[in-house]
Amino acid sequence: MVKKIKTMDGNEAAAYVSYAFTDVAAIYPITPSSPMAEMVDLWSAQGKKNLFGQQVRVTEMQSEAGASGTVHGSLQGGALTTTYTASQGLLLMIPNMYKISGEFLPGVFHVSARVVATHALSIFGEHSDVMATRQTGFAILASSSVQEVMDLAGIAHLSAIKSRIPFLHFFDGFRTSHEINKVEVIDYDVFDQLLDYEAVKEFRNRSLNPDRPVLRGTAQNPDLYFQQRESGNRFYEKVPDIVAEYMKKISETTGREYKPFTYHGANDAEHITVAMASGCNVVEEVVDYLLNKGEKVGMIKVHLYRPFSAKYFFNVFPETVKKITVLDRTKEPGSLGEPLYEDVKTLFYDQEKQPVIIGGRYGLGQKDVRPSQILSVFNNLKIDNPKNHFTIGIVDDLTDTSLPEEDIVDTSPAGTISCRLWGLGSDGTVGANKMAIKIIGDKTDLYAQGYFSYDSKKSGGTTISHLRFGDKPIKSSYLVYDADYVACHNKSYVYHYDLLTGLKENGTFVLNCPWSPEELDEKLPASIKRFIADQNIDLYIIDAVSVAREVGLNNRINMVMQTVFFKLTDVIPVDDAVKYLKEFIDKTYGKKGQKIVDMNYQAVDKALEKLVRIDVPEHWKNAEDKEEDYPVKDEPEFMTRIKRPAARREGDELPVSVFKGMEDGTFPLGTTAYEKRGIAVMVPQWQTENCIQCNQCSYICP
Amino acid sequence: MVKKIKTMDGNEAAAYVSYAFTDVAAIYPITPSSPMAEMVDLWSAQGKKNLFGQQVRVTEMQSEAGASGTVHGSLQGGALTTTYTASQGLLLMIPNMYKISGEFLPGVFHVSARVVATHALSIFGEHSDVMATRQTGFAILASSSVQEVMDLAGIAHLSAIKSRIPFLHFFDGFRTSHEINKVEVIDYDVFDQLLDYEAVKEFRNRSLNPDRPVLRGTAQNPDLYFQQRESGNRFYEKVPDIVAEYMKKISETTGREYKPFTYHGANDAEHITVAMASGCNVVEEVVDYLLNKGEKVGMIKVHLYRPFSAKYFFNVFPETVKKITVLDRTKEPGSLGEPLYEDVKTLFYDQEKQPVIIGGRYGLGQKDVRPSQILSVFNNLKIDNPKNHFTIGIVDDLTDTSLPEEDIVDTSPAGTISCRLWGLGSDGTVGANKMAIKIIGDKTDLYAQGYFSYDSKKSGGTTISHLRFGDKPIKSSYLVYDADYVACHNKSYVYHYDLLTGLKENGTFVLNCPWSPEELDEKLPASIKRFIADQNIDLYIIDAVSVAREVGLNNRINMVMQTVFFKLTDVIPVDDAVKYLKEFIDKTYGKKGQKIVDMNYQAVDKALEKLVRIDVPEHWKNAEDKEEDYPVKDEPEFMTRIKRPAARREGDELPVSVFKGMEDGTFPLGTTAYEKRGIAVMVPQWQTENCIQCNQCSYICP
Repeated sequence: MVKKIKTMDGNEAAAYVSYAFTDVAAIYPITPSSPMAEMVDLWSAQGKKNLFGQQVRVTEMQSEAGASGTVHGSLQGGALTTTYTASQGLLLMIPNMYKISGEFLPGVFHVSARVVATHALSIFGEHSDVMATRQTGFAILASSSVQEVMDLAGIAHLSAIKSRIPFLHFFDGFRTSHEINKVEVIDYDVFDQLLDYEAVKEFRNRSLNPDRPVLRGTAQNPDLYFQQRESGNRFYEKVPDIVAEYMKKISETTGREYKPFTYHGANDAEHITVAMASGCNVVEEVVDYLLNKGEKVGMIKVHLYRPFSAKYFFNVFPETVKKITVLDRTKEPGSLGEPLYEDVKTLFYDQEKQPVIIGGRYGLGQKDVRPSQILSVFNNLKIDNPKNHFTIGIVDDLTDTSLPEEDIVDTSPAGTISCRLWGLGSDGTVGANKMAIKIIGDKTDLYAQGYFSYDSKKSGGTTISHLRFGDKPIKSSYLVYDADYVACHNKSYVYHYDLLTGLKENGTFVLNCPWSPEELDEKLPASIKRFIADQNIDLYIIDAVSVAREVGLNNRINMVMQTVFFKLTDVIPVDDAVKYLKEFIDKTYGKKGQKIVDMNYQAVDKALEKLVRIDVPEHWKNAEDKEEDYPVKDEPEFMTRIKRPAARREGDELPVSVFKGMEDGTFPLGTTAYEKRGIAVMVPQWQTENCIQCNQCSYICP
Repeated sequence: MVKKIKTMDGNEAAAYVSYAFTDVAAIYPITPSSPMAEMVDLWSAQGKKNLFGQQVRVTEMQSEAGASGTVHGSLQGGALTTTYTASQGLLLMIPNMYKISGEFLPGVFHVSARVVATHALSIFGEHSDVMATRQTGFAILASSSVQEVMDLAGIAHLSAIKSRIPFLHFFDGFRTSHEINKVEVIDYDVFDQLLDYEAVKEFRNRSLNPDRPVLRGTAQNPDLYFQQRESGNRFYEKVPDIVAEYMKKISETTGREYKPFTYHGANDAEHITVAMASGCNVVEEVVDYLLNKGEKVGMIKVHLYRPFSAKYFFNVFPETVKKITVLDRTKEPGSLGEPLYEDVKTLFYDQEKQPVIIGGRYGLGQKDVRPSQILSVFNNLKIDNPKNHFTIGIVDDLTDTSLPEEDIVDTSPAGTISCRLWGLGSDGTVGANKMAIKIIGDKTDLYAQGYFSYDSKKSGGTTISHLRFGDKPIKSSYLVYDADYVACHNKSYVYHYDLLTGLKENGTFVLNCPWSPEELDEKLPASIKRFIADQNIDLYIIDAVSVAREVGLNNRINMVMQTVFFKLTDVIPVDDAVKYLKEFIDKTYGKKGQKIVDMNYQAVDKALEKLVRIDVPEHWKNAEDKEEDYPVKDEPEFMTRIKRPAARREGDELPVSVFKGMEDGTFPLGTTAYEKRGIAVMVPQWQTENCIQCNQCSYICP
């Protein structure tokens, strides 16, 4: 079979697969799951057909509670029904989940796992939502990457239909749902061959139908309830084998091996880590890194979390293992340990050889999980009494749970090019970077990955695009710390952020600014100058705003900076890049008229002209901080201890103790008064003779 | 302090205690929790004061989702807030529970634990609802009996206020919430002395208030969320000590000893059971029974389930234990075991001496948990490879999970008088029995217990009242199997039900029927006649309907049968009983006028006159079943296999396999056609000459 390659995010992969198996999608949008339902809705409107030759019927309800009720009712009506949700949305579905599983209905939930709000709301990735449903009787399947979403989403549908057990298929919110990666697409023909059409027919025949009326949803008394509740055990017993069988078939088709639990590492491993979803990719990189150093390590990736199959776990578990760390991406205060940890301990309790089992929490609120943290997890196992119930990724100086983080190591495959681009929300940086990835992913043999960090300010906030390109599939499910290329699309950032940390020696830095090469010495802070000189950084500047204005694009600098990106990173020959960029311009702006297309063409051409390479003066090595770079202000403690570091994007470094007294999520008010970001590209000047004192200076003044 | 004794059910005990600590009750009614909120509402309307000298403000919302949102908001407003719920109602509160715990707000939920609907709805007791909230960060406290509800409900409020962690306090729906028992009431003065008023003041000072504005409920990014989430660990660490300290003080006050985990049994026990809530009482009786037989057994009762404190568990755990059975009253399909079982295995994993740990499910859908089942649990531990993941109380002939049930043994304290009264829903039997318990409980030194089994037909359905009386506190949290006294208030039951099974030798049976003593031989089925003769039963009949009609009470036979009950059981001297009954009549019917009071007086007096003792004929021993007693009908398999046994109230005996093919809760329709209960006291006869063919014969025909 010809491999079909496409660049997409996790949500698109799940939506694409689920569409094939879905008669009805009952939905209610919630971040970060909304794009799945939106795509299914769009494709349905476009006439796309599922495996049964029909368009998916999409029904949006008034809340997730209604959506799950519709899933339940629609399944009882004999329609294969799917929903997409996350976080509190999933919680609202819990009552119906018991009904759906209790009635053995093959519904499928695709969940972009997200934090359940506690002291604060967070829209980011975590498993607290999925873990709140582990007792509902749903089967739970986890995917670690966009490719796995593509490969396993179908397993959820196929197995649900064959086993009559509903499936919850999840992957990490944002980290996987919004990561763009180059994946191999599974053709609907494959699903068509795997689907048990006989089971579909039986499912439809069981539906509530006035032609063959039956009673369901009775109220039962103590005399019968327990017996009937136990009568379905056999269905659950079969699930692991059904899933394993489909995984085998998908493995044969794709060449990527899947099992309910997969093992990766040394055959004689002594220390292993057990984890689920995107964190596994980081663990895998670290395992490979340690294997290269000759360490006896390994990992078990949990795909089928419920039913939890001891058989399939021990099928892959190396008997040589002496110590295990179980990583949970959730926190259950008051428990003896997080859920996967308790499961693994329960699993080994009756084993003859009992390894040491340690549990840890990671990545809560989508704290980035980087190899240096996982290194500390393996190092923890090396000591005699490994710390249990630890945390990684933070410094817990209140209750001492955290492991000391190791130095950052680059565990991504050799030859990977990593880029970090700083943009301003709505300046087009993210969109342009997505375009770059699609160009490289779709037009070349290279693999590509893009992840985009937004802050909650959205438009006007800071965006950081993390891009990787390379010859091998890119699984690094963490931000770019070791960059070959850093671009800054807004000059004010040089004063606010530590832009260059992690830029490799001899790396490239490009700055969009209106400054002349001569002005740089004066404008750039000493720390940046020293870094550039010390690390032998290739420094470029471009006045992208002027270029954009010249060609008539106003402040839209994305095409300019995109061209610069292709020119400087040299991921593909720049001439090819220009050709592809212009194709994209045709495709994207063609509908808006030739004028717009031409403006963008010119932006591309001018960008190449206007890019300036700077000869870094020798004396930058000795640049000294000026007093005024760090003016000392009289500010409340909250500002100096929390708000300022967070605004500098150094919030990750804040220790737990800064929140002492604020454990309940209390923040002081009035902090906006201290915020001055200086991000405006143009600032109006007061012309006294013209002023009519309307007080709308920045908004309307000519 | 003078002991204040009162007869009440678990709901009233929880409502009484919670009222003291509550500023605002945000509620939405759901069975079996509704009476708690109703009582608080009533008392508030009556002007009852809480510890702060105010009436509770009761707010009923549009659903439990709204109620929990109100709890959250009200707590943020500085009001100590309480709610009462169960089952799906509790599930709707889950999203707010994360917020309430995340913001360290001392709310308290009193939960009458009930089945979460799966293949069928059930209004009865189970822990599936509570277990669905164990990850929310709430502390969870369990009570086993009405007295424990009285003693521990306050611990929940006191500890929540002191620790800032919200508490969920639960007890078994119906089994405890609706069991009437004689309890020692804790005076509000005691709570007043124990309450940490300083903590209350701090709580109120933390509230959202425009005079000291703060920001709460922020949206956080990955940079800060994890650290702040971990900053509250210290609050959780303190909870077990706080609870233990309050338990110590309540123990001192009440003389009943409470700890986070309590141990009961031999100091050198080898086999123990771990359980929560009302099932513990049955285990306790069986432990005492086995201790008397010299066996080395014991039990650990879990009071504080979350935070789960290893320290307090091992404080009471005897080191001699070799095998443990953990009983869970919930089912989590697809897990490695039910939650308490996983917790206990996790707890022991790192211990040097690892006992065998076995898990079992019991009492789902409030399947009655009787001593014979618990005996089988202890017997299971005696074999070399005890069955794990077992069930008790059912026969699982599909997946072989069930333990064989032992013979019924009477483990209740010697001298306990047990009674079973069969009534017809709305005939007043249940109300009259509650009156009897209150009379005996409040007027004498005897302890009393009443539990009332309804079927879902409610009015017109069958009610069975299970009453116990004795010198010692009555903890038997199960139905009456070994009765001293059986009363049947509806003659048709003799044809439908196995009324006498479990009636002790020389016991008493009284039947309300219009038959003369001479007619009995003809009317009574052979099986009943044989049982009466063989077991030397004291047989009485009374035509209670005639008595009631004679005195003008129509079909209301409750006062007649109540009098008979006191006469025949001899729990208290009958003259005293008559006096108390008449006092109750004054109190209950006084408002309705002297005529009604007099009618009831007469009913009491006439009942004593009209009661007839039957000399049981010797030949009843050889009574033979007549063909027509068991007419063979051509009925669908569902009728013969499930409906008929269930209608005979033998549904408990049905094995799991009868539900094969119906695992999803599917029942056939049209079964009412086969139901003929013959419960009407009067049946209209067709008088052709008068008939106007209005077709409303039974409803209106004179």
